[in-house]
Amino acid sequence: MRDRLEKQLAFIVEADKMKSVLRRTLLTDKSRRENDAEHSWHLALAAMLLAEHAGNPLEIDLLRVLKMALVHDMVEIYAGDTFAYDVTGNADKAERERTSADRLFALLPEEQGRELRGLWEEFDAMETPDSRYAAAIDRLQPFISNSVTDGYTWREGHVRRSQVMARMEMVREALPGLWEFVTGVIEDAVGKGYILED
Amino acid sequence: MRDRLEKQLAFIVEADKMKSVLRRTLLTDKSRRENDAEHSWHLALAAMLLAEHAGNPLEIDLLRVLKMALVHDMVEIYAGDTFAYDVTGNADKAERERTSADRLFALLPEEQGRELRGLWEEFDAMETPDSRYAAAIDRLQPFISNSVTDGYTWREGHVRRSQVMARMEMVREALPGLWEFVTGVIEDAVGKGYILED
Repeated sequence: MRDRLEKQLAFIVEADKMKSVLRRTLLTDKSRRENDAEHSWHLALAAMLLAEHAGNPLEIDLLRVLKMALVHDMVEIYAGDTFAYDVTGNADKAERERTSADRLFALLPEEQGRELRGLWEEFDAMETPDSRYAAAIDRLQPFISNSVTDGYTWREGHVRRSQVMARMEMVREALPGLWEFVTGVIEDAVGKGYILED
Repeated sequence: MRDRLEKQLAFIVEADKMKSVLRRTLLTDKSRRENDAEHSWHLALAAMLLAEHAGNPLEIDLLRVLKMALVHDMVEIYAGDTFAYDVTGNADKAERERTSADRLFALLPEEQGRELRGLWEEFDAMETPDSRYAAAIDRLQPFISNSVTDGYTWREGHVRRSQVMARMEMVREALPGLWEFVTGVIEDAVGKGYILED
């Protein structure tokens, strides 16, 4: 039991590094960029609040979704954040993150590491209802931030309408109750030049 | 449905302010102080990992605990963070937080606001197994940070052994598997002068 606890405490200490992995998204007050720990909290909170808008709310196991939300970006402790619209960065993202997962989840007692790694892999594969819902919220959270920061990351990345539409496709499928909101924001942002027309 | 969604989105945008509520605790790399969003994520992660060490793990409903972890500090968006060992600040803390809760949870659709406020009140009252476990983890998370940052907040607050013991009492009861770790860290910190002997 003491060995298990030591491993769990080491993992919890290592987790602190999530607070220093910066994402592209700004805080809504535009004071600075958001980090992975903040994003993961915000994502979990949104997942808890918006489940009723999922395609089939009864298919969603919120406990599993929240666990996924808490761990989904932890591989970035070693692999770093990859901007959603960065083509080069996304080319080797899977390999970098797999190597990082090997190192990260090995810190935990074996079966617990396996559970968390399983949740991360499930999230990443986006094939189950839980992971599709979580992935839709993962796209929505920075989208909402962009909508109230004059499209900061869209403008910075010279992002085009078709790219945002492709990125947000998971919302149409897994969170259809939000789709009208999403398309409305995109129209508005294209109109203002924050998102480039194709 | 549109009205519900608008309220939920407004709440999610307002939640961003958690990222600017600073706590006393340092990041483990000592680069800066931690904020409420980061703390809430770290707390939820630890709650997910340490449930087996609870007094009676079967009494713990992890979904409710994670929900509590996600919302437990949100009243600080308006009320601010109150340092655990700040006697003056704690005198009017309850009143400040109640006023803040009235404002915050009113942003949500009524029954959802009631659910979240209920979780926050339950956490605050520390009377149920879920809230006692969550409260123990809430004390443990900054305690772990202190243990790896040379007792930063203890030294800054000139905190005495009896104060830390009183603060950590909830761990002894609700998370007994961690008590040996806690007392060991306290002994070490007293020995190094990070915590003052009574």
